[in-house]
Amino acid sequence: MAEGIKITTIGGGSSYTPELIEGFINRYEELPVSELWLVDIEAGKEKLDIVGNLARRMIQKAGLPIEVHLTLDRQKALKDADFVTTQFRVGLLEARSKDERIPLKHAVIGQETNGPGGLFKGLRTIPVILDIVRDMKEYCPDAWLINFTNPAGMVTEAILRYTDFRKVIGLCNVPIGIEMGVARLLDVDHDRIRIDFAGLNHMVYGLDVYLDGVSVKDRVIELLSAEDTSSFVKNIDGQAFEQGFIRALGALTCPYHQFYYKTDEMLAHDLKNYEAGTTRAEVVKKLESELFERYKDPDLAIKPPQLAERGGAHYSDAAVRLITSIYTDKKDIQPVNTINNGAISGIPDDSAVEISSLITKDGPKPLVLGDLPVAAQGLVMQIKSFERIGAEAAVTGNYDTALLAMTINPLVPSDKVAKVILDEMLEAHQEHLPQFFSKVES
Amino acid sequence: MAEGIKITTIGGGSSYTPELIEGFINRYEELPVSELWLVDIEAGKEKLDIVGNLARRMIQKAGLPIEVHLTLDRQKALKDADFVTTQFRVGLLEARSKDERIPLKHAVIGQETNGPGGLFKGLRTIPVILDIVRDMKEYCPDAWLINFTNPAGMVTEAILRYTDFRKVIGLCNVPIGIEMGVARLLDVDHDRIRIDFAGLNHMVYGLDVYLDGVSVKDRVIELLSAEDTSSFVKNIDGQAFEQGFIRALGALTCPYHQFYYKTDEMLAHDLKNYEAGTTRAEVVKKLESELFERYKDPDLAIKPPQLAERGGAHYSDAAVRLITSIYTDKKDIQPVNTINNGAISGIPDDSAVEISSLITKDGPKPLVLGDLPVAAQGLVMQIKSFERIGAEAAVTGNYDTALLAMTINPLVPSDKVAKVILDEMLEAHQEHLPQFFSKVES
Amino acid sequence: MAEGIKITTIGGGSSYTPELIEGFINRYEELPVSELWLVDIEAGKEKLDIVGNLARRMIQKAGLPIEVHLTLDRQKALKDADFVTTQFRVGLLEARSKDERIPLKHAVIGQETNGPGGLFKGLRTIPVILDIVRDMKEYCPDAWLINFTNPAGMVTEAILRYTDFRKVIGLCNVPIGIEMGVARLLDVDHDRIRIDFAGLNHMVYGLDVYLDGVSVKDRVIELLSAEDTSSFVKNIDGQAFEQGFIRALGALTCPYHQFYYKTDEMLAHDLKNYEAGTTRAEVVKKLESELFERYKDPDLAIKPPQLAERGGAHYSDAAVRLITSIYTDKKDIQPVNTINNGAISGIPDDSAVEISSLITKDGPKPLVLGDLPVAAQGLVMQIKSFERIGAEAAVTGNYDTALLAMTINPLVPSDKVAKVILDEMLEAHQEHLPQFFSKVES
Amino acid sequence: MAEGIKITTIGGGSSYTPELIEGFINRYEELPVSELWLVDIEAGKEKLDIVGNLARRMIQKAGLPIEVHLTLDRQKALKDADFVTTQFRVGLLEARSKDERIPLKHAVIGQETNGPGGLFKGLRTIPVILDIVRDMKEYCPDAWLINFTNPAGMVTEAILRYTDFRKVIGLCNVPIGIEMGVARLLDVDHDRIRIDFAGLNHMVYGLDVYLDGVSVKDRVIELLSAEDTSSFVKNIDGQAFEQGFIRALGALTCPYHQFYYKTDEMLAHDLKNYEAGTTRAEVVKKLESELFERYKDPDLAIKPPQLAERGGAHYSDAAVRLITSIYTDKKDIQPVNTINNGAISGIPDDSAVEISSLITKDGPKPLVLGDLPVAAQGLVMQIKSFERIGAEAAVTGNYDTALLAMTINPLVPSDKVAKVILDEMLEAHQEHLPQFFSKVES
Repeated sequence: MAEGIKITTIGGGSSYTPELIEGFINRYEELPVSELWLVDIEAGKEKLDIVGNLARRMIQKAGLPIEVHLTLDRQKALKDADFVTTQFRVGLLEARSKDERIPLKHAVIGQETNGPGGLFKGLRTIPVILDIVRDMKEYCPDAWLINFTNPAGMVTEAILRYTDFRKVIGLCNVPIGIEMGVARLLDVDHDRIRIDFAGLNHMVYGLDVYLDGVSVKDRVIELLSAEDTSSFVKNIDGQAFEQGFIRALGALTCPYHQFYYKTDEMLAHDLKNYEAGTTRAEVVKKLESELFERYKDPDLAIKPPQLAERGGAHYSDAAVRLITSIYTDKKDIQPVNTINNGAISGIPDDSAVEISSLITKDGPKPLVLGDLPVAAQGLVMQIKSFERIGAEAAVTGNYDTALLAMTINPLVPSDKVAKVILDEMLEAHQEHLPQFFSKVES
Repeated sequence: MAEGIKITTIGGGSSYTPELIEGFINRYEELPVSELWLVDIEAGKEKLDIVGNLARRMIQKAGLPIEVHLTLDRQKALKDADFVTTQFRVGLLEARSKDERIPLKHAVIGQETNGPGGLFKGLRTIPVILDIVRDMKEYCPDAWLINFTNPAGMVTEAILRYTDFRKVIGLCNVPIGIEMGVARLLDVDHDRIRIDFAGLNHMVYGLDVYLDGVSVKDRVIELLSAEDTSSFVKNIDGQAFEQGFIRALGALTCPYHQFYYKTDEMLAHDLKNYEAGTTRAEVVKKLESELFERYKDPDLAIKPPQLAERGGAHYSDAAVRLITSIYTDKKDIQPVNTINNGAISGIPDDSAVEISSLITKDGPKPLVLGDLPVAAQGLVMQIKSFERIGAEAAVTGNYDTALLAMTINPLVPSDKVAKVILDEMLEAHQEHLPQFFSKVES
Repeated sequence: MAEGIKITTIGGGSSYTPELIEGFINRYEELPVSELWLVDIEAGKEKLDIVGNLARRMIQKAGLPIEVHLTLDRQKALKDADFVTTQFRVGLLEARSKDERIPLKHAVIGQETNGPGGLFKGLRTIPVILDIVRDMKEYCPDAWLINFTNPAGMVTEAILRYTDFRKVIGLCNVPIGIEMGVARLLDVDHDRIRIDFAGLNHMVYGLDVYLDGVSVKDRVIELLSAEDTSSFVKNIDGQAFEQGFIRALGALTCPYHQFYYKTDEMLAHDLKNYEAGTTRAEVVKKLESELFERYKDPDLAIKPPQLAERGGAHYSDAAVRLITSIYTDKKDIQPVNTINNGAISGIPDDSAVEISSLITKDGPKPLVLGDLPVAAQGLVMQIKSFERIGAEAAVTGNYDTALLAMTINPLVPSDKVAKVILDEMLEAHQEHLPQFFSKVES
Repeated sequence: MAEGIKITTIGGGSSYTPELIEGFINRYEELPVSELWLVDIEAGKEKLDIVGNLARRMIQKAGLPIEVHLTLDRQKALKDADFVTTQFRVGLLEARSKDERIPLKHAVIGQETNGPGGLFKGLRTIPVILDIVRDMKEYCPDAWLINFTNPAGMVTEAILRYTDFRKVIGLCNVPIGIEMGVARLLDVDHDRIRIDFAGLNHMVYGLDVYLDGVSVKDRVIELLSAEDTSSFVKNIDGQAFEQGFIRALGALTCPYHQFYYKTDEMLAHDLKNYEAGTTRAEVVKKLESELFERYKDPDLAIKPPQLAERGGAHYSDAAVRLITSIYTDKKDIQPVNTINNGAISGIPDDSAVEISSLITKDGPKPLVLGDLPVAAQGLVMQIKSFERIGAEAAVTGNYDTALLAMTINPLVPSDKVAKVILDEMLEAHQEHLPQFFSKVES
């Protein structure tokens, strides 16, 4: 009993959870999980029950001795956990919808990670994450926190800057998606491809690409100069870059780069969805309600194929892969969000970066991959500045700091527009931003 | 005779030259110039004669033994010079007009230093500057090159990266303008104000502000949060920032920051001028032709007051002040563009920065002023990336590199627009861009 | 009255105080001191009275309205001070004698700043300095602390690492001594010489040397390659370096470098003094007792010329010069010990360095002088490691940490010898090292 | 045929070669070597034949299709090689004997890597290595150079600083020896131990130690605080450190650290051998002549067990392991000497470091392991300064530079002694130091 692994998943009622369960089932040999605690908040109780029951059916069908606990008591769930994963959404999809639509109302891309929407997601999420960290320090100080709550970069930055907790790893499915896209591009199996990733979350570059260990970067770049990169990740629409741009850049981009290198096209596209009522939150809301209908089916005991369409595929798989490598000290290479410590020059040593790292029992050890391309350093630092000021605003609840974060975001065209969006969003999200509003006494 | 100082001014036929002459006259006691060589190209011969004759009348009136030489022979002019100043414009105002108007045609700000226009100004200027450096190494290896040809940041970067010449100082009138603006704001004499400047050319921040040596930064920032900063420099229109933005930033901005923090307002403003045919180049063209009419007057023997309206005021004065401090080893503090060497962390050690420096006979020694504000680091690095890639494109004449530079410029909304503007500008400036076109053999 | 400057001198009964007084008298025009508080401890009361009375006679003779207060109440003395200077010696010369003699007993140089003796001086001094800093934060938070208590490097490092107090400047008379030595070498007035200093306290290099602003480094190095450098500073005996050594190093050394580049000669010399009972402490003890006899003379109202022989000349003058430049915002260049902030690459940004800095009302701003010579980087980092571990031992009272500091000192030949010396010195200085001994409860 | 791997071993007549052969035989499955070219110089022809014939017998006995070529024609041997290993000794053991004995004559440790002896080994070796690099760029530009010729740190530094060749990896058997020593200490199998290594060649620290992926550093340090570490590596005699020293250091040392942390004991030990004529070179000379007698035996077709006593065990095995991991893109972790690129802060980015790295087809990617212990930074930088100045002296043949390198070596007690040793060694090694002597024309 003392042998098995205890996993605690905060935001356990998420529609992603079945993927996580599937991951634990598939890797049970290597990663003998004995207890899985799914935690959620009162408002998420119904979903938690639906997902939790599906989880139990899946495990039963697999014939594995994994106990599934459903609870609203976070501290109890954290007690003696070995790994904690977080995948919650403060304010649910309703909040995401506001994150996307309010900026669009002012002709600004919302972008729920590194854009104005991401700022507000950070303002809502960071205080909760810091609370979780406080609880972990008390109830499971040796556990690793695997965070895939967005904005994962800003969240990791906040933990590194405002706590002394270091056992945090931010996780994203974008890099794995790029690798799979490259594999498709070259028509080879995914496991023959390796990419040296470096940058920030949703702002990561592939510095080199290997097929069976031999660099094929130049070939991939040639293909990409012609190809449509849109297939990389389903979450966002992609468009091919101009001939020569990637060639001169000398590195692979990630799908989110289109927001910065194709700002006007992306904005036009988002505005169309805005008017049609088909922004991502709205699409996802529909998908989710269908998914939960599906999850309720008492005969369902596998991850339903529809989940793959939800976007964010491989997120949970990435999490289980990471947990397994830590647990088994596998020393394989995975791209994670962790402290820089000089791996990427130009970015402060004590900041979070997303970088290919060796995964050991002692956590990730970033690889030294050389400098970012000169042409990428500016944009990367701009997002890093945004992450740092955003994290500061989330912790302090200072209005001016939030205005500064909004203004320096590369998607926001002026301080004036920044203020308009900021004010509307603060009001819209008021209930989830106590640090900005409950200042009566201090 | 061997005692006097020899100054060589490349682009001597510039309308700014009378200010330079006035500077040399006013500081003659400290800086006994014996020879002033004004150099220009064939196409500028008429202006050179007009300005040169005015210069001679001014010196004669002042009763000083400064010889004025007018020549088209650059190498002869450089021979044994002590200081070389550069203030030329490849392609003249006609080219500037294209730099401004072609981007605006596609609803993009032209901005002749750190914008698309600046890229092309750099592509035209850098090869010429590198030629001048080659000549200096041969004809006056001990001379200092004081460059105020824009884009001064990209030009200095190019010299540092593509030559081993280190006696170059880039100069700008923006910092002095900010100091004068602050003095007006506080209603005190300019010489009681000192600002710690750090950043890049036309992207410089005032990290602290002192009145009689005591920091008044907080007070100035409070005033600026309310005030219109437009009076700082006449070159561009200014608008006040949103309350709290500067407060949270914690540093003074320069007027050019408005292009990045108020992109949409600036664009609207420039578009209006575009349509009215009153972009800066057009205004300046008119001013210049009036100025040259004025300069022709054989009775004129002083700098005419109209020059002050030309914009760029204090440029020449700044140059004379800098030359004087080097010559006299004055060890006063002036903001200059020079090699970073660790003064600003985050910017590569071997890159150009604009920073308050001690001016000695041995050149500028930057002051360590602490880090740039976190919120400023991203934008600064974005311009630095742009400067570096732009300088590379200027030296290599590589199309893809130029496309990359254009795309990463923060004023350009997408790679597609970048390509359209690039192609039009390459064609428009073809005669001044041999590195992109004369590739028959290589 | 509220206008005048209040100076507080901790260790006011020092034999150096008359030099300080002379400095205040000579610079009264620029630096109108109204109150001078000399503070000492009970054991130093007699000396305090003697020196204090001399100070009063000197001021009276000069006809200046400076009040001199003598007190054992440090907090009262600190109240509302503008500048605090420290020049005390925990354990008096008796302790210095032990610092020098115990290592020599084991054939190791004592060296009271960067050697084993310096470690113990640091262990005794740092807790007292941190106490003073605590008091300053309460009683005079706007005052500057000018520390010339040795080991000034380790003491400054300790304040930077273990407090959030930043208004500290460490001061040393070595750089000024080098400048004066160079002036004598070139037979010119001192004020025509300027040296770019960079390194650590008592481990500082002259990266360039200027006569009237023109580099004469090569000439000085040639002279030094032949010359005896012993005249630079009277405190220690000097010997010329081998031909070619300084030439290849490419920088000026300071007299203390002989301990590292001439370890065996210095040891032989010190051992001779050890046996003869003429180590520095013993010589100084004799000098001091003669000085105090002289100070008692009620007819004496000037700094007696014998003080110049005491060694440490120019210390107090350097302090008054520094205070004056801060007070008047003079912006001249002085070598001081301050936070590095990137000025010297390779040394941590948050460590203390000794470096030529611009002195402003806002404190010192280091100049960026380029890298230390490659050959110097190792020794400098070795002393920095020693300073950091020494400071840590002083704060924690941890035996192992003290052993580590002693072992890594470049003058100590092995861990075994380190332990022997450490144990003897801990015992000898027990009464002044409560942090190592009063651990009954914790 | 085009499929097999071609290995070229420069210094093929070395007594170590049989270990290399054994390595290739044992790993033939993974690393199908088809051609092995053993190269040597005229003076080594006899040994080359003896070793080459043994190699052929070993391969024949193993029944593998590896061709062994023996040649004095280096360029022919390099043609189209896949991997080049170097293990030569300019001046043979006779030179090593001088490297050891001349310093000892003046009571200074010789130490053939980071001591005075190492300087001279570097001065003799670096020009030859740079020649090999030139040949490789012409004859096998895609090959990797695996260097285990000492001083491996200085040699790698020289290649990085004085060529643009980057496919070099320096190799050492010290880290593997430490791992094996720790395994013995804990009485576990070697492959359960992993150590995070960082530092310089023969100056490497174990920043953390893992048993089955769990840190056991504290336990190992406790054991080492009591234990005799001498068993780690046979090359040099070891002695335990003082209680608490390693504890406070917080990292494992390597055997060579004893030269710096136990200088006097090591010197006493070496002096005893000096007088007895049993310095390492002399012992090795005897061992080697016995080994070659053994190698001649036509019945011998395995690596004779006596080779293990030669010292330097595991060197060749480490080389084959490294080559295999590159060839198979294994991505395991091995400590190698490679370019720093920010992995260890404080050491220049472009310098060589010894660091645990991921081994890929694209070469080593250093892991970011965090900072070196503060107490280690000084000594490490001192050796780095020595390596850099030593490499410069080797390339320039400048006497002053060599004197500087000798003087800053931490084992040398003064510039005077440095000069005496330098002059004697220059004379003794004259025939192998053409860069210092053949300066008639230049």
